[in-house]
Amino acid sequence: MGLFSKDIKTMDDLFLHVLQDIYYAENQILKALPEMMEKATNRELTAAFKSHFSETEKHVQRLEQAFELIGKSPKGTKCPAIDGIIDEAHEIAGEVDDKKVLDAALIAAAQAVEHYEITRYGTLIAWAGELGKEPVAKLLTTTLNEEKAADKKLTGIAEKKVNLKAAG
Amino acid sequence: MGLFSKDIKTMDDLFLHVLQDIYYAENQILKALPEMMEKATNRELTAAFKSHFSETEKHVQRLEQAFELIGKSPKGTKCPAIDGIIDEAHEIAGEVDDKKVLDAALIAAAQAVEHYEITRYGTLIAWAGELGKEPVAKLLTTTLNEEKAADKKLTGIAEKKVNLKAAG
Repeated sequence: MGLFSKDIKTMDDLFLHVLQDIYYAENQILKALPEMMEKATNRELTAAFKSHFSETEKHVQRLEQAFELIGKSPKGTKCPAIDGIIDEAHEIAGEVDDKKVLDAALIAAAQAVEHYEITRYGTLIAWAGELGKEPVAKLLTTTLNEEKAADKKLTGIAEKKVNLKAAG
Repeated sequence: MGLFSKDIKTMDDLFLHVLQDIYYAENQILKALPEMMEKATNRELTAAFKSHFSETEKHVQRLEQAFELIGKSPKGTKCPAIDGIIDEAHEIAGEVDDKKVLDAALIAAAQAVEHYEITRYGTLIAWAGELGKEPVAKLLTTTLNEEKAADKKLTGIAEKKVNLKAAG
């Protein structure tokens, strides 16, 4: 979150910091997804990661529009939470031998990423509404709905395909 | 997640690793909550943190039962994701000046923690079901429902009390 600075005095400051946090996070996710795509073996999972990569590019653009709407330049702030979540995903991708088990682990890692985004966008949308930044709230709600749909899609793949094969 | 070892060969290995990951996470949360309770100024928020502390103690006990059910000793595995999320919470607690803004930031941090737990328990319950560990799935479902309820309670406090005051 990068909320380390005494500069955070108002809700507007806090809003900007969390916006910078998720901007950093989305950009880190863009860097991490290609490896996850490459490592996944289940076709439906690979396709889901590819489609989420395109969505994530749109999420970055929407965040840039959000910065513009509040009169700020897009800027990230280092966020130890997403770094930790992505570190785990990378390590899984390199270290699990069995392909089916790896798919299950990749899904778990990707869902941790989705849930991080869901909580941050949920917070930002609530705050944007209260701070009278309705156009920003609307923009971010589109992204939040895509993150929730991505999480559900991963659950579906896990339940129908990957886990059963890995357990069998 | 600590999934760094080539020892993860089967779904049972992966299940055990994620169980160790969330066991570590719950114990770190128990250590972090007292500071969050102390820093919160909204009474309803302080009460929510206190009640979640007692729930977290039960979550740790349930995880110990889960380890027992699969014939393993309770053990944590270092998890960079929860460490990052909690680092952020600590930093917020020390660095935001305005009390109302601090409450809003503490809620956002606590909801990031809840969402991490929700995703990990969701994964473990799905895997437990597929691996024929129904009693473990049942135990963890009780915890998952409490985590979801805690997240909703925080949203309620944020929407009704804290954010409005902080924005006003």
